[in-house]
Amino acid sequence: MTHVELPTRSRETGSVHALPAPYLLFLGDTVEPGFAKTAFGLRDWAGDRCLGEWGLPAARVTAGLPRLTPAEAAAKGARAMVIGVANPGGVIPPTWIPELLAAIEAGLDIVAGMHVQLNGIAVLREAAGRRGRALIDLRVPPADLPIATGVKRSGKRLLTVGTDCALGKKYTALAIARGLSARGVDATFRASGQTGIMLAGEGIAIDAVIADFAAGAAELLSPTAAPDHFDVIEGQGSLFHPSYAAVSLALLHGSQPDLFIVCHQPERETILGHSAFPVPTIEAVIEQTVMLGRLTNPAIRCIGVSLNTADMTQDAADGLIASTTARLGLPAADPMRGGPAFEVLLDACQA
Amino acid sequence: MTHVELPTRSRETGSVHALPAPYLLFLGDTVEPGFAKTAFGLRDWAGDRCLGEWGLPAARVTAGLPRLTPAEAAAKGARAMVIGVANPGGVIPPTWIPELLAAIEAGLDIVAGMHVQLNGIAVLREAAGRRGRALIDLRVPPADLPIATGVKRSGKRLLTVGTDCALGKKYTALAIARGLSARGVDATFRASGQTGIMLAGEGIAIDAVIADFAAGAAELLSPTAAPDHFDVIEGQGSLFHPSYAAVSLALLHGSQPDLFIVCHQPERETILGHSAFPVPTIEAVIEQTVMLGRLTNPAIRCIGVSLNTADMTQDAADGLIASTTARLGLPAADPMRGGPAFEVLLDACQA
Repeated sequence: MTHVELPTRSRETGSVHALPAPYLLFLGDTVEPGFAKTAFGLRDWAGDRCLGEWGLPAARVTAGLPRLTPAEAAAKGARAMVIGVANPGGVIPPTWIPELLAAIEAGLDIVAGMHVQLNGIAVLREAAGRRGRALIDLRVPPADLPIATGVKRSGKRLLTVGTDCALGKKYTALAIARGLSARGVDATFRASGQTGIMLAGEGIAIDAVIADFAAGAAELLSPTAAPDHFDVIEGQGSLFHPSYAAVSLALLHGSQPDLFIVCHQPERETILGHSAFPVPTIEAVIEQTVMLGRLTNPAIRCIGVSLNTADMTQDAADGLIASTTARLGLPAADPMRGGPAFEVLLDACQA
Repeated sequence: MTHVELPTRSRETGSVHALPAPYLLFLGDTVEPGFAKTAFGLRDWAGDRCLGEWGLPAARVTAGLPRLTPAEAAAKGARAMVIGVANPGGVIPPTWIPELLAAIEAGLDIVAGMHVQLNGIAVLREAAGRRGRALIDLRVPPADLPIATGVKRSGKRLLTVGTDCALGKKYTALAIARGLSARGVDATFRASGQTGIMLAGEGIAIDAVIADFAAGAAELLSPTAAPDHFDVIEGQGSLFHPSYAAVSLALLHGSQPDLFIVCHQPERETILGHSAFPVPTIEAVIEQTVMLGRLTNPAIRCIGVSLNTADMTQDAADGLIASTTARLGLPAADPMRGGPAFEVLLDACQA
């Protein structure tokens, strides 16, 4: 697979996380493929950043990459070992520690997007300090974030928004950025969450930023660019989510998108983990996003819908895509299926 | 002045800041009365929590309280010295350190709401550790904040919202809570910012909370109460503020207000510090607050308007209050002026 164009800012010029690459993917002792979806995402969307994989003997999943010890990976040019699994609770079990220490000793930085912080584990901190290696916790935002200015920046911006959490905003943004790049557009995927940051090699986990600075962090994420440059920004949460709407609003205000795509999963009836809250209609999300987004970009408009049809047959998916397009008068597609509908969605981005 | 009923939750039951009282107010070396407005607010709104005041010889402002050394204040029962000044930059100058150390040695905790943290100053940390005293930085939120549930809580809630920052949301909430208490209503002021926390003795600075947890912190701030209990919640920012709208939205969603009052300063034409952004109309704030607030409380409604007429003559203020009432068909008043218009606003709270 070809890869999405990588961000070009350096570690020196912006307060975003900038990751050392290429990576060695660490699979821990994972048996359940569902817990290794970060590693699979890295393989699929950032294959050129991944040199190989490593895990404990107990691991029974593979991303299909060459199996390399940390020392072998370092010898081949790897700069970081990335924890590619998300176990329940987001913890780092004691059994992983010797492997993380081996990676540090081999000269690799360690990258994690878990709730538990690498920097909170004394033995890792001691080893990293002694070897001059970095422990990069993607859920800890950069220290020097600014307050949002609200001042319009040059360049085009597209934001993926959602009817709920966890239904395809990241992969939609990746697919749109890749699709535009394939058409010769100068497009960059901008990561606003920890998995996205691993894929892009750069970004800020907006939900981990102090509320006062969240819109400012979003401004930093898609900096001033050439007028025809396209930033495709990974959305977070939903304006209709009772816990996380503020994160979505900060990202909307700071991103100042010209265009947005609503991401929706047809089978989802209530907000994930909040069964008293119905998933809003796509129409309601469009209306609310325009109404709130116009504060920092009066020209904001919806250009289409991304449907997550992973659990549907091709026929059912095609039918839903056609009926949604007809109902809304906007292009609808499942970017993971591609096809003519997705090309129409890309046309709408460029129109 | 009588005081607003104080919150009753203890340090043990909630993750809010709970302050030791009574206070000795520290005025530093302040010459400019404008920088001592925190001390004046404490005197006016929480006089029963204030035993006395203390400052350097260079200080030329007074809150009119008995002048007591930290040791004298401790002997009279003071439990904390509260920094009652906000100088430009929010710094703690080296000249204050000996006085802060004297307070710690006298057995007082230190409370501050500044950008610079007491806990970041090694000599204070060392002394506090040795004497078993607390350094309480109100801009550092409690550590164990939950994600918002969105589940409706019993009790009545009123939130003050604004057309901008810094125009009277805190004092409106204090005045409403005091006015309701004077009518025999079981009402509690809930503080969402550092000055409000000093006044109430308890609260959470919502703007300092990590974005993911901001609505959850707001839920904690006004916990389940008796059905006829009234929480009057201090608002933050504005939904139309390009930097802080997310803070306002988190507070709105987590507070689940039944009622809200829009706070407005008539002379303010553009958002403070963001001259490209016009101050929205009161009507626009009502519409947006209802539209967003109904996610967690479908019964939300606006019951009136608080006008900050501090810079107007009595006649001009009366005229504006009357014309605003007529235009909106809602009670308008300046709570700092009181009078019949304010009584009508209180009636609307109880209707």
